[in-house]
Order: sequence, then structure tokens, then C-alpha cells
Amino acid sequence: MALIVQKYGGTSVGNPERIKNVAARVARCRQEGHKLVVVVSAMSGVTDSLIKLAKELMPLPNEREMDMLLATGEQTTIALTAIALHALNVPAISLTGAQAGIVTDGVHTKAKIKNITPKKVHALLDEGQVVIVAGFQGQTMEGQITTLGRGGSDLTAIALAAALKADLCQIYTDVDGVYTADPRLVPGARKLSEISYDEMLELASLGAKVMQSRSVEFAKKFGVVFEVRSSMNENPGTLVKEETRSMEDVVIRGVSLDKNQAKVTVVGVPDRPGTAARIFKALGDAAVNVDMIVQNVSHAAASPCTDLSFTVDKPDLLKAHKVIDSLKSEVAFREVTADENISKLSIVGVGMRSHSGVAAKMFDVLAKNGVNIEMISTSEIKISVVIELAKGETALRAIHEAFHA
Amino acid sequence: MALIVQKYGGTSVGNPERIKNVAARVARCRQEGHKLVVVVSAMSGVTDSLIKLAKELMPLPNEREMDMLLATGEQTTIALTAIALHALNVPAISLTGAQAGIVTDGVHTKAKIKNITPKKVHALLDEGQVVIVAGFQGQTMEGQITTLGRGGSDLTAIALAAALKADLCQIYTDVDGVYTADPRLVPGARKLSEISYDEMLELASLGAKVMQSRSVEFAKKFGVVFEVRSSMNENPGTLVKEETRSMEDVVIRGVSLDKNQAKVTVVGVPDRPGTAARIFKALGDAAVNVDMIVQNVSHAAASPCTDLSFTVDKPDLLKAHKVIDSLKSEVAFREVTADENISKLSIVGVGMRSHSGVAAKMFDVLAKNGVNIEMISTSEIKISVVIELAKGETALRAIHEAFHA
Repeated sequence: MALIVQKYGGTSVGNPERIKNVAARVARCRQEGHKLVVVVSAMSGVTDSLIKLAKELMPLPNEREMDMLLATGEQTTIALTAIALHALNVPAISLTGAQAGIVTDGVHTKAKIKNITPKKVHALLDEGQVVIVAGFQGQTMEGQITTLGRGGSDLTAIALAAALKADLCQIYTDVDGVYTADPRLVPGARKLSEISYDEMLELASLGAKVMQSRSVEFAKKFGVVFEVRSSMNENPGTLVKEETRSMEDVVIRGVSLDKNQAKVTVVGVPDRPGTAARIFKALGDAAVNVDMIVQNVSHAAASPCTDLSFTVDKPDLLKAHKVIDSLKSEVAFREVTADENISKLSIVGVGMRSHSGVAAKMFDVLAKNGVNIEMISTSEIKISVVIELAKGETALRAIHEAFHA
Repeated sequence: MALIVQKYGGTSVGNPERIKNVAARVARCRQEGHKLVVVVSAMSGVTDSLIKLAKELMPLPNEREMDMLLATGEQTTIALTAIALHALNVPAISLTGAQAGIVTDGVHTKAKIKNITPKKVHALLDEGQVVIVAGFQGQTMEGQITTLGRGGSDLTAIALAAALKADLCQIYTDVDGVYTADPRLVPGARKLSEISYDEMLELASLGAKVMQSRSVEFAKKFGVVFEVRSSMNENPGTLVKEETRSMEDVVIRGVSLDKNQAKVTVVGVPDRPGTAARIFKALGDAAVNVDMIVQNVSHAAASPCTDLSFTVDKPDLLKAHKVIDSLKSEVAFREVTADENISKLSIVGVGMRSHSGVAAKMFDVLAKNGVNIEMISTSEIKISVVIELAKGETALRAIHEAFHA
């Protein structure tokens, strides 16, 4: 008999039929003798309609009140899920984040979990109840309702699993698990049976969209092993856990392509201390999210200047361009260019630490396929290159094949 | 500067436009220098959709979970109302029933308020905040979310007014106040400027539909003066308060007609102790709500038997008929008859206690208008008669005119 924390996202509980499916799955798992804590999100669409209602009243509503408002979404789902379980004769009880003992700081709409007191959850589990907990929400020490921000329900599940010392945490979603590459782009992509936290983090930051980095970081910090799997079928998913020696035998865990980035190059930047800081502070103030940054050595010894390139999300390109333009007299660069026709191709794997020549092999494969590399950025377990947008998918498939990812 | 508790029902906050209207009204009242606590219901239709969702999962959902579910309705409205006030630059903060210190017993879906700890509400008022409180809900000592049942938001407002020692409690609704008769039926009906708790209670039980008896009883018990008025205009409403001497100068406060009742007569009931108890216990077990009950003296001295008549809500008539039929062999009555074509006409007023001949005058007016009386029932401040349905409205107007109600 294991203690399992399961989390079901908004699509999995999107209507009464789907809530019944979730209840049936939970009932089967309980039948096998497990103790179960089930974390659910708001039904898909509910959070967006609540936000729309609030914005009809005020463009930038108060964040404390937004938390009061949005917390109702998950509270609705927990009650409905408990009722669906009762319909299957499974004893079940719903708890809000506050009732489940989830204490957060007071930063409304993006609160951090400070601690969890799982006494009540334990007591209810001991009574034989399936405990349904509202994801995404908590309460401050002073009794204020808070929400955890994007990906908050995953975080609730993983934090509860840590606090309860659960044997397993299952994140049910609308994909089957983590793949070596996007199966829609790479026909030979395989589902991974396991992946390390660090690899998962790199994939998350590369736009793999399975989970927010935040929850993976939390799981890593507290050593929570979790499985990403689909609520629509019975296939085993991908286990995310601490790196093991055998993981290093595989050089590359996955290959990813991000077509949603654009490149900005500031040409002829005077090579003075503080220049880069000035540029990226201005971008940060304008809430432009910068991903890759590449700066090369200076050209001329007399009046040293350099080119500075970075990538931003495509929708932010215009804003980024304007911000840089506004700095022209202050920073005294020569010109700024922008390029939307790029994509970012990345390979990820803890194995590359112990295998030399991974970068060389990647660049060689790209060259043989006539793909020019415009920017390169590396971490210990990742290599990313910026290439022409039109060649992105061909390059992705070639790299995936070359590394037998 | 007064402390005022205002309550707005589901229709008054039914959409963002209406919430803005409520906010504007609250803002004006605050401008006049008052401290304000605003109790709101769920937006009209929301509670019904939530109930529908739950029933799609299970015909008789668990009551604790229904409370968890339904409490989200008011929580949504408080957040939206606070945001609408912020849009008008009015400092406002929302509180759930639990946060407002409303402690109830544990009878889910129809909990009773046990006590209110208004410390937090007082503190927020002292900070200059308009405090928005979720109606209809509370929390047990153990932290379970409860709801108060029908009319619960009125009860929240009146109980808060009592706990806060508010100067005034205003119940905003979709009618202008309490009338001497239904203005749709009696063109000469006048709005009452004041009415006693007891009169209001009698009118409530007569189907005047302005408020549930429960809230009026609570107000009476704690001496909370409240005003029933419309959220759609600026007209003063009706003040409900303890009886004053001057009230007795008016013989009849109001006249009401209930066309939603039906009459059942059990003919030839043996006049034995326990017979009536047996009949009404069976009706109670079948959840049939009985209103008027009339039993006359026995006919024959040898084998004494009597006729027993009572009224029920029209939709319950068939059920009542069946229940009585099933008792035929046990109770040994002669037969049972049912009549849907009746209405109940009532006059209410504390003044009738000190004015003799009120009943005689009522019966005389009815006789002069050719209206036959089928049943009579009286209380200290009320006389009700059952008459033919088709003559109900004529009789209502005649009585209203006769008493210059």
C-alpha cells in the first residue's frame, strides 16, 4: 500500500464527464489499496472567465481580490470531484488550500509556499478518505487567501507529496509524458521512461511546456520523485527524479525546437563596463523576457566595440526594438537589427558532461545539412543554437537521428 | 457618521453593470461620511448552475460538499464588488463568511449562526475600508465551510448588524419596500413607511416573498432595525422595527392574497385522541408543508366524528392526497376531498388587537361582495380566510378599500 499524490489539470476536469473519468481512475487506484491525495485545478476556461469578469470592472484589479476571486475556481472543482467519487461509493472529502494546511507568504497572485502542516490530510487519510485538495491556492499566517501563480497546481501536488512523504506523485496532463523531441515534428521521437530534474528543467525552459520550471525546482530541492502521464489513457509516463549513474550512458536526453523567439543584435556597442547592464536593465524594466545572450570579443583595440545579440519572445520583439532605440544616445551604439526568422534548437542531457565532442558532432550534423549557426549558447547539460527559421524542423530531425535521442 | 450594514441580493449583483451600480451607491453613501459593511449574495443564476453541475454527478450530493461548492458563489461576488469599488477609488476589502468571523453550527446547507466575532470587520472599518462580506456562508469552530440555507444573505446582514451594533441595516432588493397589498393586484396599494417585526413575520408567512421569516425573527430577537428598499432607485423603503404605540392606531397594516394553496378535507374522522397527530405526522414524513388547519366540533354524540381541513402548497396536493388515502384503513375516516380552486386572503396588523370588530367587518365586506368563506384561521394580529380562487382578487381589492389599508 502506497501513499500517492495525484494532480489533474484543468483539461482533465474540464466538464462533468471528465470529472467522472478522473473519479473512476482515482477509484481504481484506491481499489488497488493505495492511500490517495488528489490535487485538482480549476475547470478549463473558468479562471479565464473570472479574469475577464474582473477586468470588465477595472483594467488592473487589486491582486488580493484577484486571489479571492480565482481561488473559487479550484474550490468548485474539489467539491465536484468529491461528489463524483461519492457517486462511485468512494469516501472522499474536499479541502481548500487553507484547510489542507498550505501556508504561503503574502505575495498575492504569485505567493510562495512557506510550509505545509499536513496533520488534517493525514488524519483524513487514516479515516480511509480520498482527500481532494484545491491546487494553486494557500493561505497566509494571517488568514488571507493567496494563489501560487502559473503552474501552481503542479506545485501544490509536489509540495504536498514532500510534506506527506508520499511514495509517488503523479502529474496527470494531456500529454503522455516527456519525449525525446516533439512527436508532431519528429516521427521517431520516443517517450522517455525517466529523466533527471536538471534535464527536465532545461527542457521546461526550452518551451517543452509540460511543466513550469518552478515545480521541477521544488521537486529537485525536496527530492520528490514524480511521474508525468496522461489522464486520457493507461500508458506509463515519464519518471522525473535525481540523476543516476545509468542516466549518463545516454548522451542526449532530448532535442527541442523553439520557433517562438526572435533575435536582436546591437551593433557597435562601446566595450565599456556597465553597458550590457544598462541595456538589460532597460529591457527588464519594460518586462521584456530575454533568453539567450551572446557577446563576442571586441573588434578594434583603439576604440574597442562589440556586437551584442540576444533573443526575446516573438511578441516582445517590437517592444525590445523600441527600448534599445531609446538608449541610442546614452549607450552610443552604431545600430540595432532585428530578425524574426530564427528558431532555437537545443540538445539536453546530463550525459554530455562525460562525453566529449558532443558540440562538435552537433555542429557537424548541422553543417552537413546546410544549416548555418547564428548564435551558440551552452550550459553544462545543454547546447542551444540559433538557426534560420525555415531550416528548424529539418535540423531538428537530423539532430534527433544523429544522436539516436 | 453612522455604521450601516447594506445587503444586496443576487439580482442587484447579477452582472458587471449591476455590480458597478451597487459600487456607485456604496460610494455615495460613504461620501456622506458613513462606515459601511456590504453583504452580497451570489450573482443571480450562479447558485442554480452550481447545483445543476453537482446533480449531473449525483442526484443527492453530499451536503458538506454542496456547501464547499455553493460558497464559491458569494466569494466570487465579494471580490468583484471590492474591485468595482476600487475602480471608483473607494478603499474596499472582501471577506468570506469565515474571515468575517461568522461561526455556525455544523448542519450543512442549513447551518445556524452561533456567534459572530466582528473584531476583524471593526479593525478594517477603523482603517477606513468598506468591508464586503460574503452572505449565506459561515464556518464551524472546526473550520468547515457551511451555508445558511434560503434567505441566508439577509440573515448574514442582520446578524452582522447586531454583532457590530450597527446604526442601520438596509436590505436592498428588487421591490421598493413592503406594501399594504400587492400593487400589481391592488392599484391603491401604498408602500408602508414602517412595520413591526410581528406584522412582517405574518406577511412573510403569507407569501409576501420580500424576506424569509427566519431573518425577521433574528432581527426581532436582537432588536435590529432594518429597512427593505430597492437597489434600482433612491426611494426610501420600509422600516421594520419593534412595535410602537402609534402603530396600533392603524388597524390593518396589510392585506395579502395567496393563490398558491389548495385545500384538503378529510371527512368523517373519528374524534379520538391521536388521530390528528397521526395524519399530520404522515404528511410531515412526506415533506408536505401544511399551512392552515381547521377542525370543527364533532357531529354526533354516539360515535363522535369530525371533518378536518387543511391547506397545502398547490404542487404538493397530489402527494398530500396519496398520503391521506394510505391512512384510510388505519384512521377509518369516511372520505377525502381536494380542492385546488381556492385562495387565501389575509389581513395583518398589530392594531387589530386593540380594535374590536375587525373580523366582523372583514366577513361583512366579503358577504356584501358575494364571497363565501370556506375556512377561517386567526392569530393575534392576523385573520386568514380561504375563499373561491376566482373571487380572490375582487375580494382583495374590496378588503383593502374597506380598511383603507
